[in-house]
Amino acid sequence: MDPTVDQVADIALAVYEKLAPLLDPTRVVVGVSNRHVHLSQEDLGILFGLDEFDLFRQVRQPGEFAAIQRVNVHGPKASFRDVRCMGPCRAKTQVELSLTDCHTLGLAAPITQSGHLDQAAMIDIEGPMGTISRPAAMVAARHIHLGPTHAAALGLSDQDLVRVRFDGIRGGLLDHVIIRVKPAWVPEIHLDIDEANALGLGQGAFGQVVV
Amino acid sequence: MDPTVDQVADIALAVYEKLAPLLDPTRVVVGVSNRHVHLSQEDLGILFGLDEFDLFRQVRQPGEFAAIQRVNVHGPKASFRDVRCMGPCRAKTQVELSLTDCHTLGLAAPITQSGHLDQAAMIDIEGPMGTISRPAAMVAARHIHLGPTHAAALGLSDQDLVRVRFDGIRGGLLDHVIIRVKPAWVPEIHLDIDEANALGLGQGAFGQVVV
Repeated sequence: MDPTVDQVADIALAVYEKLAPLLDPTRVVVGVSNRHVHLSQEDLGILFGLDEFDLFRQVRQPGEFAAIQRVNVHGPKASFRDVRCMGPCRAKTQVELSLTDCHTLGLAAPITQSGHLDQAAMIDIEGPMGTISRPAAMVAARHIHLGPTHAAALGLSDQDLVRVRFDGIRGGLLDHVIIRVKPAWVPEIHLDIDEANALGLGQGAFGQVVV
Repeated sequence: MDPTVDQVADIALAVYEKLAPLLDPTRVVVGVSNRHVHLSQEDLGILFGLDEFDLFRQVRQPGEFAAIQRVNVHGPKASFRDVRCMGPCRAKTQVELSLTDCHTLGLAAPITQSGHLDQAAMIDIEGPMGTISRPAAMVAARHIHLGPTHAAALGLSDQDLVRVRFDGIRGGLLDHVIIRVKPAWVPEIHLDIDEANALGLGQGAFGQVVV
């Protein structure tokens, strides 16, 4: 059977992602993260009565995906409806917001790294089978996903901090970008909507790591 | 009659604003601009039946003020209610939005300088006496207000571009900041909510001009 157009695109992307860092390891593609929710296995069961998420769309990082499941999140001042869940399940439930979102909801959530929820703000998360309150609301600190080979090419290790330069009418340089390294990861800088809009960047723009 | 607390504060601020650039002319205070509306004299009449705005609150730039009057603005996808008007009247009606606001409203507005409305997007503006459609929606290009003495101390002129550095966990450097010079102006960099949140800056934070 011939491969589908989508399969060809997937293969082309995979090849590109492997080759790009060999050409210029400082060049990283931008992934813009809108507000989204990760759920623990237990909370997925409570909110949806499911053992695992259903796939809506793959994202750039292998194994990660946008789920069909969506939730409503409620803060003291406002709510957001139909916030996308991301699969697979995580150890801890986490609601990733922008600072603009926090202001709208009336929450004071910390700017922190994924999974570091000691200071996370309480938030109500509503699914079709119930509502839970969790210390889960945070603003993701900007970070770059890298595979180990790519990180080594840049002389970088997990948790290192770098600066990243962006061109364009709203160009600039962002400090304190956290390097995250895992074997499966492809190079990508994750910014939230505030950061992307402030720098005039869309999905698929490129930045340059300043080591 | 003794001066009021507010009068003392105003005088202290005025003295500070005059002295600060003498100490370090590269240091500029941040003014964060939420979405707001300037109206022409004619449009103020149409929407409110008034000849001039009523003062709600002075802002840092002498002569400029937040008005009591507020409007609703309507885009193809959504509306914002109670958007603050800024006085006094301008030659042209102008609706200043963030890129996040544009996305919410469903508008494609240009990033441009105040008053440069050739490419501005059409938007409906509703006041108590009616609704008008104007090519008025824009995203304000980041800029610095300076008085002539201060500009001269930095070797800068109106329309020059500089970069501005900000410290902190979300620190960074913004390119393409437009220098604006008028006799009455005090030093201040104007950022929109996207930019302020992306850099982790609040009202009254400081940046450093990199000439």
